[in-house]
This record gives sequence, C-alpha cells and structure tokens, in this order.
Amino acid sequence: MSTIIDVRTTYEAFANGADLSNLGEVEIYGWARTNRNSGQIGFIELHDGTAFKSIQVVYSNDTDNYDAVAHITTAAAVKVTGTLVMTPEMKQPFEIHAKTVELLGDVSEDYPLQKKRTSLEFLREIAYLRPRANTFQAVFRVRSVLAMAVHSFFQERGFVYVHTPEITGNDAEGAGSVFTISTEGTPHPYTDFFGTKASLTVSGQLHVEAFALAFKDVYTFGPTFRAEKSNTKRHASEFWMIEPEMAFTDLNGDMECIEACIKYCIRYVLEKCPDEMAFFSTWIEKGRMDQLNAVLNTPFTRMEYTDGIKLLQEAVKNGHKFDYNKIEWGMDLQSEHERYLTEEVVKGPTFLINYPKEIKAFYMRENDDGKTVAACDLLVPGEGEIVGGSQREERYDILKAKMDKLGNTQGLEWYLNLRKYGGCKHAGFGIGFDRLLMYITGIDNIRDTEPYPRTSNALKY
Amino acid sequence: MSTIIDVRTTYEAFANGADLSNLGEVEIYGWARTNRNSGQIGFIELHDGTAFKSIQVVYSNDTDNYDAVAHITTAAAVKVTGTLVMTPEMKQPFEIHAKTVELLGDVSEDYPLQKKRTSLEFLREIAYLRPRANTFQAVFRVRSVLAMAVHSFFQERGFVYVHTPEITGNDAEGAGSVFTISTEGTPHPYTDFFGTKASLTVSGQLHVEAFALAFKDVYTFGPTFRAEKSNTKRHASEFWMIEPEMAFTDLNGDMECIEACIKYCIRYVLEKCPDEMAFFSTWIEKGRMDQLNAVLNTPFTRMEYTDGIKLLQEAVKNGHKFDYNKIEWGMDLQSEHERYLTEEVVKGPTFLINYPKEIKAFYMRENDDGKTVAACDLLVPGEGEIVGGSQREERYDILKAKMDKLGNTQGLEWYLNLRKYGGCKHAGFGIGFDRLLMYITGIDNIRDTEPYPRTSNALKY
Repeated sequence: MSTIIDVRTTYEAFANGADLSNLGEVEIYGWARTNRNSGQIGFIELHDGTAFKSIQVVYSNDTDNYDAVAHITTAAAVKVTGTLVMTPEMKQPFEIHAKTVELLGDVSEDYPLQKKRTSLEFLREIAYLRPRANTFQAVFRVRSVLAMAVHSFFQERGFVYVHTPEITGNDAEGAGSVFTISTEGTPHPYTDFFGTKASLTVSGQLHVEAFALAFKDVYTFGPTFRAEKSNTKRHASEFWMIEPEMAFTDLNGDMECIEACIKYCIRYVLEKCPDEMAFFSTWIEKGRMDQLNAVLNTPFTRMEYTDGIKLLQEAVKNGHKFDYNKIEWGMDLQSEHERYLTEEVVKGPTFLINYPKEIKAFYMRENDDGKTVAACDLLVPGEGEIVGGSQREERYDILKAKMDKLGNTQGLEWYLNLRKYGGCKHAGFGIGFDRLLMYITGIDNIRDTEPYPRTSNALKY
Repeated sequence: MSTIIDVRTTYEAFANGADLSNLGEVEIYGWARTNRNSGQIGFIELHDGTAFKSIQVVYSNDTDNYDAVAHITTAAAVKVTGTLVMTPEMKQPFEIHAKTVELLGDVSEDYPLQKKRTSLEFLREIAYLRPRANTFQAVFRVRSVLAMAVHSFFQERGFVYVHTPEITGNDAEGAGSVFTISTEGTPHPYTDFFGTKASLTVSGQLHVEAFALAFKDVYTFGPTFRAEKSNTKRHASEFWMIEPEMAFTDLNGDMECIEACIKYCIRYVLEKCPDEMAFFSTWIEKGRMDQLNAVLNTPFTRMEYTDGIKLLQEAVKNGHKFDYNKIEWGMDLQSEHERYLTEEVVKGPTFLINYPKEIKAFYMRENDDGKTVAACDLLVPGEGEIVGGSQREERYDILKAKMDKLGNTQGLEWYLNLRKYGGCKHAGFGIGFDRLLMYITGIDNIRDTEPYPRTSNALKY
C-alpha cells in the first residue's frame, strides 16, 4: 500500500515540522510542467494544482521504462509512485525518487500552451486553458481565497448572507443599461414568463435593505450585470459584488466596517497565499506586497468632497494637468482626479465623503446642509475607487419626494414602506469583488481576474 | 458612557461563563416584538435580528416617559438604555431594566404583520417583510450558515472556488428551457451585445471541468436558472447550485466526497443554529433534529440502479401502488420511486448508481457493460434526490462520438479538447442548495427557502 499525497498537504506537513522521511512508498497525481533529462537521469516538475509550488520527480535507470518516461511532454497527466526524499541542501526541501511514472493523459501536438512565456492577451483567447499558466494559477487561487475572506469577515461578525435575486422587475437604481430576460418561441418573449418585464440585477442593495431591517447586519455576495459597451480595463458585463447593509448604523459606522473589511481581506490573502503574492510582487507589480502591508498599518484618511475639490483646484493652479481640467464643486470626479487625491495628496487609502446630492443615488441620506448626501467612496492608490457606500435616507417624506420626482416610486412602494414599518437609520456599501482582486494582485485588466470574462462581443466559451 | 450590546454576543458571552452583572449602563437597538404592561410595570420583547432569541426589557415608573413607552407597538424600532440584570430563577437568564426606551421608528397602522400567526402563503406575498417572522428568521439564518458550511467544507480541503459565468453562449447540457438575454432598443436584441445568442446558465459544470484540470479540486457555488413553468414545490426559476469537480477521481471518490459534504453541512448547521433547528423540529417538521442526527451516524447506502428497479418491481408485485406503476429497466425514476427506495427500503440516505446511459447526460462516463454510465444520485428520506453526480467521460473518441450524435459539438470543441491536453479521470456532482436547505429545515416549499423566490408569474419584488 502506498500513501497518496498531494503537493499542498506535503508542503504544509513539512512546514509544520512533520517527519516526511518515513512515508514509505508514495503515490501522487498531477501534470508534468517540464521534463528534462540527460540520458542517465531525468527530472519532471510535477504540478498538481493544489499549490502554487511543484514537486520535483527524479527518475533514473532504476525507474520502470526510463525511455517512455523521458518522452513525457509538458502538460501530460501522470501518476508517480516512489519515495519522498529530503533534500536539505537544495532549494526545494524534498523530491520524489520515482519507481514508476505512468502516463495517464497524453498531450496532442496542437496544444496551445507550449511556449514558456505567453502574453496575457494571448491567454485570454484560451480561457479554458489559461488556469494552467502560472499567472492564472496565482490569480484564481487568490480569487478563491479572497472570496472566503469576505465570507469569513462577515460571518465572524454575525452578518447574515442573503442571496438577493439575479432576475428583477425593477432597475430602479439607474446604474446604467440592463440586460433584459426573455423566453424564445412565445408571442411576447419579454413578458410571457414572469407576466412583466424582467431584467438582470445591477445591485442587490434595495432587496437587502429589507433584510437589514430584520437581521440588523446582512450582506450579499453574488453576480451583478451591466449591459454597457464600455471597453475599458475596469468594466465587465458580469462581475461579483459584495453589498453589506447595517441597521442602526450611520456613515461613520459604515466607514469603520469598510476599513475593517478591506484590511481583513488583505491580511487573509497575504497569510494564506504567500507564494502567489510573492509571484505578483515580482512579475506583475513590483512591491505589491510591501504596499499592501503598508495599507494594513495605516488608518484610512477621511476627506470631505468639498475639500477634495479645493485640493484639485489648487493642483490645477500649480500647473498639474488633468485630461479633464475644469474642476468645480458639483462635478463627478474622474478616475484621474480620484487617483491624484489618493496617490499624490494622501498617498494612501482615502474616504471621500459627503458628495453633492445631484451626482449620487436617490436612496442616499441628505445631510443637514441640503446640498450633500452622507456618501463615501473609498479611493486607493493604483486603482481609484474600490468601494462606494452611504447612509440611506430613512425619512419617509424626504425619500418619497425624491422618488416621486425621479418617477421611480411605482414598483418600489415596498421599498418606501420599509420607512413606515419600524424603519431606522441604516447604512451600507458595495465592493466590486473583481476590482478588489485587481487591487490586491496588481493585475490591471478585469478580464484577467474573471474565470470566463463577459464583455461585449466576447462570449467564446 | 454606556456599553453597546446586542442579543447574540450577550447570549454567547453568558454561555461562555462571562460575568455580565457589572456591565454598568448598556445600550441596545432593535425592534419590539411585543409590548405588554399592567399599569405599574411593562415588558418589551426586544428582538434585534442578531439571534433567534430576544431579550426582555422591563420598564416601570422609574423609566423615563412610562406612558409613551407603554404605547410602543409591535415592530417599532427602539433604542433602550438600562442595566442588564441576571435572572437565574427565570426561563431567560437575564433581562434589561430600562432607564430609557426611545422610539426610533414608528409603525404605521397598515402594517401587514400585526397578527401573531400567519400562513406561509400569506407571508410569501410580502417577501420584503417576512424575514421578520419567526419562521423566516430561522430559515434565512440557516440559509446563511449553510452557505458558510459549504465554503468551509471545500476550502478546508483545498478546493478552489470558481465563479463560472452566469451568461453563456451554450446551453449544451440540455437541462431544460433557458432564459435568453437581450438588449432592448437595438435592431437585433438577441445578438447585438455579445455578437451571438446568449442565455442564462443552467449549470457551471462544463466550465468548471476546465478548472479541475488545472487545480485538481474545484467547486462552483452560484445562481443557476431554468425557464420551466413547472409549478411544483421543488422548482424555481432561479436557485443556487454547488458544483464540485475533482481530477484523478472516480465514482467512488465522488460518493465519498458527497457523503462527507452532506454530513459536514448538517453537523455545521446543528452546531451553529441550535435555536433555529429546535424551532423547525417543533413547528415545521416534528423530530427533524433527531432524523438529522441519525443521518450523521449512518453510512450512506449504495445501491445499483438495476437492483433498485428489481426492488420496485417486487414492491408492485406485493401490492404497493405507485402513481406510475409500470416499472422497467431503462426508465427514469419518478420522485415516488426514489422516495420508496430511500424511505421504505433503506430508511436512510441512499446512493443509486450506474444508471442506463440513455436517461443520463452525454458527459457521463460509459461503464464497461456498454449500457450504463458511472452516475450516482443521492436520495434522502422526505426529500428524494438532493445530489446528482458522475464520473465524466475522459476518453476523447467515445465523448466525441456521443456529442456528434447529439449534435452539440459545435461551440464545445474546447470541452472536447480538455480530453486531448493532459486529460484524466475526473468526477463531480451538483447539489441544489435550496433543496438541501429544504431537507435540513423540513420546509416543504422551495419558495419559502429563497429570499425573493422567482417562479413563472412571480416577480413582484
């Protein structure tokens, strides 16, 4: 009987000080990353997907069918039996001396991932194979671990996870174009199934507010959609959003939660994915880990929108050139303005707060000045905005007047009613999960953070 | 300065033996469940959504504005300050003696949840308010905890969580009708955005198989859609699915993982939600907790489909009446047949394995008998099928012949290619998350397990 091992648990056991020298015969399954040999001795870099690292398999004339093993090619699936041998004098702490190397799945000659180094653009065209490439081994493992960080953060704090619906009858947030849902082969494809027009959600916030008023602290975490043909590095048609909502909480409590959440997520990933983060820091964005560690030790700055505008105006006066150079109170900040504030002025994560009400959503709470709303955007160096939050308007009359003016009351009476039935102060925020992943990894195109990215004219897989 | 407390952490601290008698002034926010008084003394059952339990607030002539407090109605949002007083002689271990009770949000007279007992059908009509009702406090907290159980199970075992896409160009699984996605106001609404027809996913399996061949063990957990107008208690148009996939794994390994996963989830929920589970066991399905505990201690039975058919035929011969009474090899089992096997024959969770290939999906691995495929359905008492799994066909030629015959090769060349590029034995399964929740809670209508259920003609919120 041989012991079945994998790369992850073997490295973990080693790190925990376990004695691995007496395992007897071991058996491991994986794929050959490389295979090189010198006639007498050969080396297969065995990768099994359980860890960023590989294990070196050494074969020799003692190994069955040396010649066949020597012909195993990159990406072939193999089963190796042999002995785990400690190699304290080498870079890797152990290797496997193979008794047998069995080819389980060969690789046909048209395999597109032969080349050692390939561009991210090329890899994007083969979405179903790119998770095998180093960069995407790192990206998608961090994506998974980051998702777990999100759940752990909120569940440890007693938040209730709510699956808000993907299909919705209202697109009242007005967050841009929506996808419409229909059923083919019916006389009225848009309305036949649900009896009313249906679209894909742009946000679960309105739905989750109802749950905050029952469970106090809740969050959503699920897919969200935009039908915008914006062909930028930061936009996709389908992405995941995290939307927490907290009853009895104001804008300050909101910002405390955002800061704790972002720091928790960074710390969690740094701790669980040291190899992947070292890879990003070396190959994707130099010094990424140091920057993230610095963020952990910095209280996030809070800055009034009004003060931000003054700083931008001063910058222009002092000769700083923005593409959009006409800075005035009331404007919606462009990414270049946000990045100037967080990168040049504060040099760290920055909450911009209390925005003009005209440029923000109807559900945000109006401040006493009558001009601004209790909103906050979290801006981070290198990425710009990654979180948007606000205290919600809990006053029935003020909210109703706003919604009537916008003409979106119909279909949202229930949302208004929440203010009549034991309503209270509440606040929440939204984190674009894919953008958070871009921020943490340094990957600069959202298409390289999503397993099968969806953008206009891209639906190959 | 008063200490802000909530119901959950206060009960947790008490359970952990903390001394709560010296907290000084405490402050708590929540909603009045009930308010009764006798002129001299009054009691508010304060519920804050953080726990299934409430805290009793006692007010008296020592409390500010006794008369105003006495008029606070059910569901009103309140802030209470006072002292936490231990009550070892009472049912509840402590109560709050109020100094002040401040009304934060009143309740208008048309509040639909006045009545103490309301039917699940009635509550379904007010989806935005029903999370306040006891049953849904229990259901939706268990839903949240169960989702965390799923993530914990897979992440502890090193599985990588993959967000497979919701929008897809293929509906090749053939799992029923799909919703089509379009963009209004364009000449060709069905194809203009993506350049090809797009629909909502019915399964992430094909997409996630590609990731299993890179990461070995992976899982999806996300929304899935069916455009079927089946108006049953077990069908919804939108529901969440868990789809794990494991490389180098056969049907036996698949079943081991399913059994471990189901048991882990049950154990996790029983441990984290004792109050909620006690509620279900008393009010929704008598003895639910005992049945679940029994499942934890029982190895799941494995039964050949062929043997299942024989047992059903014998049952018919012995006078058992099924609605569909003509039992023959090759048939697709109805729910009544599945339940007979798991409830009457085995009296416990049962894997039915090796189904006729004609009634199962094209990607399942053909057994050597040429007639069956390496598939398993997990049947459980009271619910029927809750998991379906299979070993996948890894042999290129056999899979291609099957797909060519079905005519679904086009657009899925990449899926076939996985068999040419270091392919290997692999297996996976799918769990309907909402059905698993039904099974654990005893709730018998899927509409009562989803925050905002989507079925045909139901899109009110």
